[in-house]
Amino acid sequence: MHRPPRAAPHATPALTRVEAVMRDIRQRIENRSLCAGKRLPSIRAQAEALGVSRSTVVEAYARLAAQGLIESRPGSGYYVGRQLTPFNVAEVQPAGTASSDPVWVTRQSLLADANSLKPGCGWLPESWMPEQGIRRALRTLSRQPLAPLTGYGTPQGSPQLRQLLSHRLAERGVQVPPAQLMLTESGTQAVDLLCRFLLQPGDTVLVDDPCYFSFQAMLRAHRAKVVSVPYTPHGPDVAAMAQCLAEHRPRLYITNAALHNPTGASLSLAVAHQVLSLAAQHDLTIIEDDVFADFEHHPAPRLAALDGLQRVIYVGSFSKTLSASVRLGHIATRADWIGQLVDLRLATSFEAGHFSAELLHTLLASGTYQRHMNGVRTRLAEAMGMVLERLQSLGITPWYRPHAGMFVWCRLPEGVDAVQLADHALHTHGLLLAPGNAFSLSQNAARYMRFNVAQSLSPAIFEALARSLQACASPSVPAP
Amino acid sequence: MHRPPRAAPHATPALTRVEAVMRDIRQRIENRSLCAGKRLPSIRAQAEALGVSRSTVVEAYARLAAQGLIESRPGSGYYVGRQLTPFNVAEVQPAGTASSDPVWVTRQSLLADANSLKPGCGWLPESWMPEQGIRRALRTLSRQPLAPLTGYGTPQGSPQLRQLLSHRLAERGVQVPPAQLMLTESGTQAVDLLCRFLLQPGDTVLVDDPCYFSFQAMLRAHRAKVVSVPYTPHGPDVAAMAQCLAEHRPRLYITNAALHNPTGASLSLAVAHQVLSLAAQHDLTIIEDDVFADFEHHPAPRLAALDGLQRVIYVGSFSKTLSASVRLGHIATRADWIGQLVDLRLATSFEAGHFSAELLHTLLASGTYQRHMNGVRTRLAEAMGMVLERLQSLGITPWYRPHAGMFVWCRLPEGVDAVQLADHALHTHGLLLAPGNAFSLSQNAARYMRFNVAQSLSPAIFEALARSLQACASPSVPAP
Repeated sequence: MHRPPRAAPHATPALTRVEAVMRDIRQRIENRSLCAGKRLPSIRAQAEALGVSRSTVVEAYARLAAQGLIESRPGSGYYVGRQLTPFNVAEVQPAGTASSDPVWVTRQSLLADANSLKPGCGWLPESWMPEQGIRRALRTLSRQPLAPLTGYGTPQGSPQLRQLLSHRLAERGVQVPPAQLMLTESGTQAVDLLCRFLLQPGDTVLVDDPCYFSFQAMLRAHRAKVVSVPYTPHGPDVAAMAQCLAEHRPRLYITNAALHNPTGASLSLAVAHQVLSLAAQHDLTIIEDDVFADFEHHPAPRLAALDGLQRVIYVGSFSKTLSASVRLGHIATRADWIGQLVDLRLATSFEAGHFSAELLHTLLASGTYQRHMNGVRTRLAEAMGMVLERLQSLGITPWYRPHAGMFVWCRLPEGVDAVQLADHALHTHGLLLAPGNAFSLSQNAARYMRFNVAQSLSPAIFEALARSLQACASPSVPAP
Repeated sequence: MHRPPRAAPHATPALTRVEAVMRDIRQRIENRSLCAGKRLPSIRAQAEALGVSRSTVVEAYARLAAQGLIESRPGSGYYVGRQLTPFNVAEVQPAGTASSDPVWVTRQSLLADANSLKPGCGWLPESWMPEQGIRRALRTLSRQPLAPLTGYGTPQGSPQLRQLLSHRLAERGVQVPPAQLMLTESGTQAVDLLCRFLLQPGDTVLVDDPCYFSFQAMLRAHRAKVVSVPYTPHGPDVAAMAQCLAEHRPRLYITNAALHNPTGASLSLAVAHQVLSLAAQHDLTIIEDDVFADFEHHPAPRLAALDGLQRVIYVGSFSKTLSASVRLGHIATRADWIGQLVDLRLATSFEAGHFSAELLHTLLASGTYQRHMNGVRTRLAEAMGMVLERLQSLGITPWYRPHAGMFVWCRLPEGVDAVQLADHALHTHGLLLAPGNAFSLSQNAARYMRFNVAQSLSPAIFEALARSLQACASPSVPAP
């Protein structure tokens, strides 16, 4: 009988015996000395043939089966996999053309590789994240008691973490006991849950113009009618809001109070007061999405702080500041709404991020997060100065100079269309930009562009941008 | 000037210097020697006073601030927190009375502490979960490159993991390339996302009677009309289904194909074929929620396998088998639906569990998960035998003896009402039961109860149950 060639488990010191056996079998499958459907030697025969222990072979077979290369047929042994035709691992490809489709920028940003240039991206570069702190927290958690690793959490989410969040919110003037806080899987999920709770299909919802593009996409999913009011450097245009409320009677207003996305502007105390007065007159509920709060040096006024969480529902998250993959959001709202919101979350997504809550609690209670954010704020302030200077040298001017945060909303030179520019930059230079109309319900932002200063530090961005600007500029004087 | 008492950083060897300084300050706040609003000594003064380095004090202050005990006022120093009135840490309390409210059992189960007796619970005990494997995987991840710890994933979710899932599904006969798989935050979120994708408010949806109670709660959130057909030991009652389809024209049918919740029954090949024929006649889309698949010893027929994912959408998850806190679901569906589903998920919850995907991949590729499940299946089989015997000795008989899984659907003795029994057991013995009508749209299951055999191993459960049964039994012969 043909004996398979002997594996050399000790040849490469880096490989364990199990890995060496796995490599050997994998090679024999690849070079067809083991064909599809063929039965592998028994554990005992294989162990003898390769000069390793039976448990080594058991482990190697189990792992190869886990990887789908071989399959176990109980009572019969292991067989080489059916060699399914090579899998089509192609991803869903987004439309190749830049557009003002609200989800386009997100999809492109998620698909771009880590090294690509993406000043239009909505988050910080990976290298800014507190890698060591997260690694340390993971090791801490790996030594902790079982429950947070494997169990479900309480319906409202970790009481410990809600206690810390309550303290943090108090620093921004939002007084909320832990019992009025609930955790969600992310800030986006929090807003979505609130829309479900508050909206009937066909209801009208007010947003800012411009606003975070996902609000538009989400509200479409809720079958809501969306209306908008222009955003000013101090918050929404109050006169326009008064008119819009009278005319369209929206049920809900969704906004960022501080470090508004995409403009980087923040609400003034006067505008906050006027907005709340209008809301009271028109029985408007407000979702204040405050996911950029920790980028601030000094807290701007919050609607939730003025309102005492009567008609304002506050949403926060750490996705933008800590880690996009260990996600967790939270909602602060009226005591009488929390129970219903928890039930709705149980029905639609069951439990929220018990493990993430533990990790976040570890990072907050140790002060790791706070130290990280001190560093991020300083870096962002430096980046903001540098990027604005470079943009201005290309004739791209800030609509408003943000006092903090990563976004700046800019006006392009006369005659340049943002979608056209984004399209050229993507296809000629692989540069991902965020054209203004992706954020604008009125589509009045054709000459605007959102830049993320943390993603705009490479000089290559400005060289590419200069060339694309030149290519897209329509001559202001007609050619002779 | 009063000098604060000197801390003894070396007194307790288990405390670091930082922790000792923290403890000292905490005690002084608690015994009011440091009052609310009072400025703490400067870093330098505190370091000298306590005989520790300045960096120790910096760290201690930062951590106390993170915990909300003191607060930093930039440029001015640290102050004792405003001593907000003691927080109300009370949780939302569920209704104290057992009921057939679909969310009641879930809420009670989540609130019950780890040691309470809960045969009605929908998941495995924590002690059954692969604690060591998860700890090991966490340590592995803590040493890995940055991206999975801090970055967003690709829109469809980890390609590596989808490749493994594709192999695993092939073992159940469901042929699906990774490109037709997408990850979601959980199995529940997957079903919810599909409901959003497929349903208009007012659409009719078909479920099994009995069925997983969260389906009913979720469908209420989607404003769907819900109709049901009785479930038999081989799948839905096909004759009743034909009639229901003709009469109510549901758009969608949501079911478990294998190890149906709550009955533990599985679909036969003949019923599967008939269901798909009916679905084709009536243009019905089917969601096959297969979250219990890995409890099976031998795979039962899947609708998705017969149908080739034309009108059947397949949903899986690891929450029930691996860890409820590291959650991740997946959807397998038609190529032309994946793109739209990904966009809808981006709009409503953004990204799905990048970190969980890495952890799960580690556990699957190492074979840890497979070994864990071999053990779980054996334990469940033993538990099933033992629990059925004990239940039968109390006159509680299985409607069907499941070939695997954790649930058994039982009939109570004549004259005993399940809600009344659950109520008595909860209030007299702290025993959480799952009354049948929580699962039944028709409310025809007043004499049924779902038992989780893995949660029913304590003899105390049967003693309590016997006493509650006695208290709730209405005498079959009227008293003289």
